[in-house]
Parts: sequence; C-alpha cells; structure tokens
Amino acid sequence: MALAPELAGRLRRNADGLVCAVAQQRGTGEVLMVAWMNDEALDLTLTTRRATYFSRSRGRLWVKGETSGHTQHVHEVRLDCDGDTVLLVVDQTGPACHTGTRTCFDDGLVG
Amino acid sequence: MALAPELAGRLRRNADGLVCAVAQQRGTGEVLMVAWMNDEALDLTLTTRRATYFSRSRGRLWVKGETSGHTQHVHEVRLDCDGDTVLLVVDQTGPACHTGTRTCFDDGLVG
Repeated sequence: MALAPELAGRLRRNADGLVCAVAQQRGTGEVLMVAWMNDEALDLTLTTRRATYFSRSRGRLWVKGETSGHTQHVHEVRLDCDGDTVLLVVDQTGPACHTGTRTCFDDGLVG
Repeated sequence: MALAPELAGRLRRNADGLVCAVAQQRGTGEVLMVAWMNDEALDLTLTTRRATYFSRSRGRLWVKGETSGHTQHVHEVRLDCDGDTVLLVVDQTGPACHTGTRTCFDDGLVG
C-alpha cells in the first residue's frame, strides 16, 4: 500500500520525511494534540480511518490508542496550503493526552 | 526582552531552535494555520499579544499581518504536554491564509 502519487507529490516533508499533524475533535473544535506522520502513517490514516502517527522518539509507526484504547476515528484529513501540515478532524475516545487530560494543552496555559 | 526562564526551561525546541505553533480562532475553534516560533517570537507574542512567528523560508521574525493587515490578536497561549508545540487562541482579522482563504486548510480536503 502506498500513498496516492498525486497526494505524495503535494507533501513537503521535513528533513526526517515527516509532516506535522494536528488532531481536532469534530464538533467541538478542540485541538487535541500535535504529532508527526510519514507517508505510510498518512496512508494508513486515510485507508483505515484510525489516526496513525510516526513516533519520533520510538522511530516507528504508532496507531493512536493502540495500548491505551484512546483511539481517534478520522472523519476528515486536510492538507494545508504549503503541504507540510495535515489537519485531522476526529472523534477522540477518552483523553487524547497520555497524561490523562482531554487535550495535550489543557494544563499548559502560559499567557 | 527575553522569555521568562521558567517558560524557556519548559520548551523542547527542534534542531533549529523552534517550536510548532497552531493558531485557532477563538469561539469558532477553526484551526487557522500552523507555523513556527523561536524564543523571541514567543516572547513577543506573549508581550504584544500580536501573533509573531519565525519564518523558516525568510530566516527572520514575522509579525502575522505585517504586510497584509491580516493580524492575529492573541487571547491565550498554551504549551502542550511535551513542550514542543504552542496553541494560540486568536481573533483573526481577515483571511489567515496568504492564498486568501479563511484558513490554510480550506482548499485541502484529501480524505
């Protein structure tokens, strides 16, 4: 399985071959988290509709919720104007953050 | 002017000294754009409340709307759980995208 050539040609990957991915809750608009995708992660996300990222720390694909059960069902994927970021509109099961909060930004007010 | 040491110590910058920044419209929750910030951009954003980014292509600070007038007034800044991304809750004047669309994702539906 590979990413459609038309889409692959529009991606502007960073030096590690990744694009940025923002996950947003459908309906509420909450920004849940930001992670990274390589081509395979994006292809799997589009075909399985389960958000799949590339873990930079572990150096491997990571299906969101594969251990926690806190999966993301993907309704929409949008690529931004310069091709280096995707926006996922998802239904989040449980907390999105590994700390147990709904989003990864809940405890982070700095200004 | 410099970033408060407590905040500076929480940032996990990439190899270029940058953190990812997601701008979201207050109220509607629209994800408007994703850009990058160095410490100075974050400090200016917090102190002036005008969203200020670091342009990777131009290699300099960039006050959003400095030429277009399409500024972002910043209501909240939140740092994520691992310190490498900030979420800005803003009031966007005019279109956020240089292409003239409201957000940088409007024309990018890929799945």
